[in-house]
Amino acid sequence: MKVAVLGIGLIGGSIGFASRARAAAHVSGWDPDPDTRARALQLGAIDAQFPDLARAVNGADVVFVAAPVGALVQTARAALDCAGPESVVSDVGSTKRAVAEAISDARFIAGHPLAGSEVSGVEHAREDLFEGAVWYLAGPPGRQPILEELIRTFGAQPVAIDAQLHDRLMATVSHLPHVLANLLVAQAVSSLGEDPPSPVGMGPSFRDATRVAGSNSAIWTDIYLSNRDALIAAIDELTGRLAQVRAALDARDAQAVRDWNERARAEREALLGQGS
Amino acid sequence: MKVAVLGIGLIGGSIGFASRARAAAHVSGWDPDPDTRARALQLGAIDAQFPDLARAVNGADVVFVAAPVGALVQTARAALDCAGPESVVSDVGSTKRAVAEAISDARFIAGHPLAGSEVSGVEHAREDLFEGAVWYLAGPPGRQPILEELIRTFGAQPVAIDAQLHDRLMATVSHLPHVLANLLVAQAVSSLGEDPPSPVGMGPSFRDATRVAGSNSAIWTDIYLSNRDALIAAIDELTGRLAQVRAALDARDAQAVRDWNERARAEREALLGQGS
Repeated sequence: MKVAVLGIGLIGGSIGFASRARAAAHVSGWDPDPDTRARALQLGAIDAQFPDLARAVNGADVVFVAAPVGALVQTARAALDCAGPESVVSDVGSTKRAVAEAISDARFIAGHPLAGSEVSGVEHAREDLFEGAVWYLAGPPGRQPILEELIRTFGAQPVAIDAQLHDRLMATVSHLPHVLANLLVAQAVSSLGEDPPSPVGMGPSFRDATRVAGSNSAIWTDIYLSNRDALIAAIDELTGRLAQVRAALDARDAQAVRDWNERARAEREALLGQGS
Repeated sequence: MKVAVLGIGLIGGSIGFASRARAAAHVSGWDPDPDTRARALQLGAIDAQFPDLARAVNGADVVFVAAPVGALVQTARAALDCAGPESVVSDVGSTKRAVAEAISDARFIAGHPLAGSEVSGVEHAREDLFEGAVWYLAGPPGRQPILEELIRTFGAQPVAIDAQLHDRLMATVSHLPHVLANLLVAQAVSSLGEDPPSPVGMGPSFRDATRVAGSNSAIWTDIYLSNRDALIAAIDELTGRLAQVRAALDARDAQAVRDWNERARAEREALLGQGS
């Protein structure tokens, strides 16, 4: 098995490690940055590094495009231009409509592993990053068995999803929490005022809610903008929900507050499982 | 040293365990629920349990009122009525203005340990719950050295804070994240629509951002309502901040999005320390 990884950051590097360790694959790596290529080779994320994308792709059974969202379409097209007729090309970008609409090639399937978040770079790449994760693939299942099998080897679960639904769902469960993390940090600083306590104590819920604040700006600016319509809709929906809570508080409606809280508990357990 | 704990849930129970293990204190416990009292005794959170609050308080050097926010003032007053002239009485409620304004007794100091969150009940109480936590005390430091010393023995750090600032800060860094956790869960369910992927993958940021969704309804309904003015102000401020992000997205202003994200990263590191 030969795997090519184009873009060797946290996700690309972890695909390299997992492919080598779990699928005994030979991994070729390309990245626009020579230092990143050298570092990935030194760390053992890849077997060989190429300054030329075509040489990395040459002979690969599976090609992973792990470029930032803004460079996805261009990099995927370059990969398809030089990949063999039996090769499978997939990406790992956080939004799926743009790439799924731009590329109609039977060898291509848009993907998104739900892993990684507040750290980035090949230095943080790990062989087990995808263990237990859902790995979304846009379109019907079974189209590319070799890709699905490799994803399972990584310990992840391939799950078919419509690209529209993917982007709407991610706007709410990933992009909006990142926005809120940033806003909560700014608002906390502002609420401390002129005479803050020392040290400032925030409590565990703030730490959890802001863990992804200020995630890699290059990656996340691309994600926010590529999913801007869905993210704007999610912001509008949240603003409406906040107004409802505000009204219940304003009316001192304890029953409404209690019911709303109970519903959230039940719904989260249904979504994620108890105790998670 | 004799310690009394009034209300034996997660916080009261953990104070009991910590007092016994770390201060070699004798701990008397009272709770309105007989089963909770029996369970706390059985688990070893307290040395003795009393159905009568006055008997639990009798002879105690330090009395902790760990009742729900809605019962705080009443329970603290009952404790002060039967505590000795040299006793110290403190509470552990999540809001501080109401109790600090209602009670002006030199033996009383309002407090709030920043620990515990998505679980409740004496079953989850632990001797090390307060390790590394800030324990806010309303008013100037040094007023009750015996209380501050005991808090340090628990592994926590006593920090003086103005009650107004406390409630404004908590509205943003604790109560608002709890509100958002609930809203994100509801919005995620709604965004899945009629034909959800199976299984549904959410990703790590959703898990973190919603960890406290649906926290104990009795406790949290009290907290939300007792801090409603500050929480409404925090909701209004967040709504304004969301509108700013929406405008930057709508204008495809990548530079504004990037700057805002970079600022959040720097501010969170300044607040919580790098890597946290």
